Amino acid sequence: MSIEERLKELNLVIPDPPEPVANFVPCRTAGKLVFISGQGPVINNLPVHMGKLGKEISLEDGYEAARLCALNLLSQLKNKISDWNQLKKIVSVRGFVASTENFYDQPKVVNGCSDLLCDIFGDRGIHARCALGVNVLPGNIPVEVEMVVELC
Amino acid sequence: MSIEERLKELNLVIPDPPEPVANFVPCRTAGKLVFISGQGPVINNLPVHMGKLGKEISLEDGYEAARLCALNLLSQLKNKISDWNQLKKIVSVRGFVASTENFYDQPKVVNGCSDLLCDIFGDRGIHARCALGVNVLPGNIPVEVEMVVELC
Amino acid sequence: MSIEERLKELNLVIPDPPEPVANFVPCRTAGKLVFISGQGPVINNLPVHMGKLGKEISLEDGYEAARLCALNLLSQLKNKISDWNQLKKIVSVRGFVASTENFYDQPKVVNGCSDLLCDIFGDRGIHARCALGVNVLPGNIPVEVEMVVELC
Repeated sequence: MSIEERLKELNLVIPDPPEPVANFVPCRTAGKLVFISGQGPVINNLPVHMGKLGKEISLEDGYEAARLCALNLLSQLKNKISDWNQLKKIVSVRGFVASTENFYDQPKVVNGCSDLLCDIFGDRGIHARCALGVNVLPGNIPVEVEMVVELC
Repeated sequence: MSIEERLKELNLVIPDPPEPVANFVPCRTAGKLVFISGQGPVINNLPVHMGKLGKEISLEDGYEAARLCALNLLSQLKNKISDWNQLKKIVSVRGFVASTENFYDQPKVVNGCSDLLCDIFGDRGIHARCALGVNVLPGNIPVEVEMVVELC
Repeated sequence: MSIEERLKELNLVIPDPPEPVANFVPCRTAGKLVFISGQGPVINNLPVHMGKLGKEISLEDGYEAARLCALNLLSQLKNKISDWNQLKKIVSVRGFVASTENFYDQPKVVNGCSDLLCDIFGDRGIHARCALGVNVLPGNIPVEVEMVVELC
């Protein structure tokens, strides 16, 4: 099954790539690696979740926010490579979760991103990962995720 | 001297690799690089230190925690490559230290990881590094370290 | 125009490389990639800004601090490669901004680094990026930036 067919099966639409909010590019290639800039839970360039885990944002909403980050990472990648067959594998994911100091479930939040990547790409989608808490993220978003992938 | 001999000389045993706590893999290879997922100070999948530097965790315990992170990173790597001769060099280490907002000695904490890598591997073990404070880490661990290495 | 000429035109002097404050090296090469250790806003090994954004450090001073981080990253790189022609491109920049929990303008701070890289290197200087808030950084510096570059 092609990735496009798999996306349809999952009823997923890769959104238009968000515009960078500052002086950087969404993707930068070095050899076979593509480094994708940190993405937040935005739709049409507007954040759909704001606040911190442990306060305004529930675990469920945090998971959903991380899933949106994954969709935006993929939209940036798709804009760069144009054909999913060029993707050899997801390599690493780093998820930063805006958290109160007694919220400890960052891995469950970042699973929103990891689960989606594995659902779409299967073995190609599994990855090394880091899940971290931070006290605040740009624009008060609850989650930011960056990713490195390898091309064929 | 082989790495196995050096480990014996240092009276070190590489532990069994901790199981990932969520949907990711411990190591992912891209070309000659291996990205190793963030590891905490756990033994037999249980954290042996919990809390923050500047509060419950002393500098000495933080150093020890970072050293345990290094052992776990190496256990994941060893599980992947099986032979230390495949390791060309440690490339980069990123250490996140759960800290109160007036604790400033993150580099001394992360040295617990760096010192061990250099003790074991000598010139092959030196690395680029980032040491950072964060307000909280998964499961209330005090230190999480991720690593990139290069294979021969 | 050569990079040396461009630096003169911008009235910029690449400083002497800061000494690592702990057990690591400033640069580590893997294939064509160079990983450069996190740099702070120091001159002659002393921090010139201390504190957090949202409290002691204004947005303007934070921007200036990130610019100093960029100069120090470049000083470490120059010390390694000796000739700017060896630099193919800046690949990725990760900027950590010590922030109070209601400071949301990390991207504007990290622009201090990104703007300088683009001013000096043009198309070679653009990069993927992550801008993050953290509650504290080593030595109470307001900004720390790490970088990956690709050599020719």
